Amino acid sequence: MRVIGLDPGLRRTGWGIVDVEANRLRHVANGVIAPDPDAPTAARLMHLHDAIAQVLRDFSPDEAAVEHTLANRNAVSTMKLGMARGTAMLASALGGLTVSEYMPTSVKKAVVGTGQATKDQVAMMVGRLLPGTTIAGADAADALAVAVCHAHSSQSLRHWKPAGAKLVGAGR
Amino acid sequence: MRVIGLDPGLRRTGWGIVDVEANRLRHVANGVIAPDPDAPTAARLMHLHDAIAQVLRDFSPDEAAVEHTLANRNAVSTMKLGMARGTAMLASALGGLTVSEYMPTSVKKAVVGTGQATKDQVAMMVGRLLPGTTIAGADAADALAVAVCHAHSSQSLRHWKPAGAKLVGAGR
Repeated sequence: MRVIGLDPGLRRTGWGIVDVEANRLRHVANGVIAPDPDAPTAARLMHLHDAIAQVLRDFSPDEAAVEHTLANRNAVSTMKLGMARGTAMLASALGGLTVSEYMPTSVKKAVVGTGQATKDQVAMMVGRLLPGTTIAGADAADALAVAVCHAHSSQSLRHWKPAGAKLVGAGR
Repeated sequence: MRVIGLDPGLRRTGWGIVDVEANRLRHVANGVIAPDPDAPTAARLMHLHDAIAQVLRDFSPDEAAVEHTLANRNAVSTMKLGMARGTAMLASALGGLTVSEYMPTSVKKAVVGTGQATKDQVAMMVGRLLPGTTIAGADAADALAVAVCHAHSSQSLRHWKPAGAKLVGAGR
C-alpha cells in the first residue's frame, strides 16, 4: 500500500509518500507546496489543488491521510487553514483516494510514542523510520509523519478487521 | 454578465445566479446544496464540489462572488466553514471563473443600504430586487445577495476602470 500524508496550510502544504508492506516502511517522495502569498485566495487554492493532483499522478498513492490541526489560532488563521485543508482533502478525493484524518496527538503517538512529543522529536523519528531520506522541510516531515501514522493504523486495523473489509483510518 | 453568488457552509451552501445588464438585474436560478451530514468530511466536500460544478455547467456564469463570513464562531465551526469556503472558491476557479470575496457588511450595504441590516431585511430586499423569484431558502437568499453585491460593485467599478480593464470586485 502506498500512502500520501498531507500537512495542509495556505502558505505551505507539506506532502510525503511512503510505501507500506507488512511492517516495513519505505520512503517514496516528499515536498512542500508554497503558493504565491500575494496571489488572490482562489488562485492559491487552485495552485494547491493542481500541485497535489500532479503529485497524485506522479506517484499514484492508494490512500490519503491528512493532519487535522486545530490549535489555538485566531479565527482568520483557522479559516485559512480550513480552506487549505478542504482543498487538500478535496484534491485527494477527486483523485479517487479515501481520505483519513488524524489529530496531531495521534500522529505524535504513532511516530514518537507520546502525544506530547515536540515537532523536533517528530522530525527526528521520521528521519529514523525512513533512513536516508532528504526531507524538504518541516511541513514535509509532518506530512511524512501523518503517512506513517496512517500506515501504522491501517496495519493495526488489519488485525481487527475481517479479511477484505474496507480499512478505515483511526481518528477520522 | 452572469454572476453566481455563493454562501458556503458544510451543512448548507446557498447559490444564486443573476444576469446583469446595464443597471438591470434578472434572476436566473438559485438553490441550496446540503451534503449528507453523516458522510465523512472528504465525501461532503466532494458533494459540494460536484454540485457546484454541475450548476456552473447548467448555467454558465461568467464570474463568481463568495461571501466572506468570519463571525463569532468557535474554532471547529470556523474550520468547517473554511473547508466549505475553500471548496466553493476552488470549484469556481476550476470552472474558469474569477472569484471575488465580499464581507457580509459589504453585501448588506449593497442590497439594503446599510451594513447593519438583518438577515430578514436582506432576504426581503433580494425579493424586491428580483421580483417573482422563488427562493430555495435563507442560504439561497444570501447567495443571491452576494451576486447582487458583485453586480453593483462591477457596475460601479466600470465607471472607474478604463475600458477593457479587468474588473475586480470590491472587498477582495
